[in-house]
Amino acid sequence: MTAAATGPATDPAAARARFRAGADVPSSGWAPGSTQANLVVLPRDWAWDMLLFGQRNPQPVPLLDVTDPGSHRTVLAPDADLRTDLPRYRVWRDGELVDSPTDVTELWRADLVAFLIGCSFSFETALLAAGVPVRNIEQGANVSMYRTDRACRPAGRLSGPLVVSMRPVPAALVPTAVQVTARMPQVHGAPVHVGSPAALGIADLSRPDFGDPVEFADGDVPVFWACGVTPQAALMASRPPFAITHAPGHMFVTDVPDAVYRQL
Amino acid sequence: MTAAATGPATDPAAARARFRAGADVPSSGWAPGSTQANLVVLPRDWAWDMLLFGQRNPQPVPLLDVTDPGSHRTVLAPDADLRTDLPRYRVWRDGELVDSPTDVTELWRADLVAFLIGCSFSFETALLAAGVPVRNIEQGANVSMYRTDRACRPAGRLSGPLVVSMRPVPAALVPTAVQVTARMPQVHGAPVHVGSPAALGIADLSRPDFGDPVEFADGDVPVFWACGVTPQAALMASRPPFAITHAPGHMFVTDVPDAVYRQL
Repeated sequence: MTAAATGPATDPAAARARFRAGADVPSSGWAPGSTQANLVVLPRDWAWDMLLFGQRNPQPVPLLDVTDPGSHRTVLAPDADLRTDLPRYRVWRDGELVDSPTDVTELWRADLVAFLIGCSFSFETALLAAGVPVRNIEQGANVSMYRTDRACRPAGRLSGPLVVSMRPVPAALVPTAVQVTARMPQVHGAPVHVGSPAALGIADLSRPDFGDPVEFADGDVPVFWACGVTPQAALMASRPPFAITHAPGHMFVTDVPDAVYRQL
Repeated sequence: MTAAATGPATDPAAARARFRAGADVPSSGWAPGSTQANLVVLPRDWAWDMLLFGQRNPQPVPLLDVTDPGSHRTVLAPDADLRTDLPRYRVWRDGELVDSPTDVTELWRADLVAFLIGCSFSFETALLAAGVPVRNIEQGANVSMYRTDRACRPAGRLSGPLVVSMRPVPAALVPTAVQVTARMPQVHGAPVHVGSPAALGIADLSRPDFGDPVEFADGDVPVFWACGVTPQAALMASRPPFAITHAPGHMFVTDVPDAVYRQL
């Protein structure tokens, strides 16, 4: 049974069951309204650095849960298995991508700590609900992401640049986009920058470092949010001996409604 | 020169200089509008447990900064010295209070990590500005604090009960009090409970576990917020070999305006 044959599951437990059974597709559009999360898994020896990196850089690295060493369980979805329930993973050794399996049960170790990190899917839903068009969704493209010339605050052995995602927003709706996302600090929060790519060290918006180029409509302004790729960029730069992450776009679907992360 | 002779300093650097020079008074009312913070200092061996405890219990343990091991510097006040600039400290060995000095320079070690934790002074200022009376301030008393029957989510060796502070609020102003504090999640955020002490396992409001009893005016309702004493209660229960904290009410005065922690 493929995702294409049946369409995305609307319930988070059903989505995880389909991924566990082998559905190998991006998770965008699955279980709409349920929060999806980035995954980073590290040995306990590196977990302090990552936990502190998240504490010091909450906009790019909003930590939704951190597991006990060796556990494959998270409070974000108590019946889920973090080793099997994502559609696809990436395996890293010494900062190099070495494999991209759909199951990491065989690789799991007693010293591994999993970090579940907020994802912009949550605020894209909120933007659409507020009448702000999301061009990458309209164009069926991945969002455009860029390394900036801003350094994250280092933590132990982890350091790296702030990575941002960019969405073209109609000028009149920029204030709405700021307000809507500012109310969701656990999924990257307010934009870090509006309007000037050069001020972030981005030379050419049409050549993103990650994801796809996204086309602007007349009157759109580029709006930049801190991006969950930031911790992966830090891992690639800092080269821990072993790490597991989600594959891009192949997120962990939690049981937590997006509305839980929407603040007053 | 005593605090009584000159009154509290209005500038945060001046406040820290006075405390460093020996002014030994509670910090309430000093540098109004600047955020004050709880301090917990632990050996690196216990720092993972505390950092994870904060990540898992953000309402009682909102981490504003975590230092590098051995450093006595914080980004919250770059020219401050955490070893000298609080008016009074507490020193703990194996969970027992052993000393209460005004300077801990001699006790500082290369493996110590300092945690700066948000404090309800910030939201009391915001409540007053919104027209919500703060009875403990009116009565010149410390706020009433209680151990509850709710357990914090444990982290490694650290566990303990949620401790709450209680403020009597006029019934008509309870919604305002919720809204004002909900906008300040880094200083404990929205109340955890309104109205029923018994539902939190509190038998008698007139007998707080910490702080002073506070009198109710006619029509006041008890409103409960997560409290920064929670991590100290966990330390006392979990007995790390060595810890330093601020003395009750003798906080660290940061350079960060309270308004920075006020969200949209």
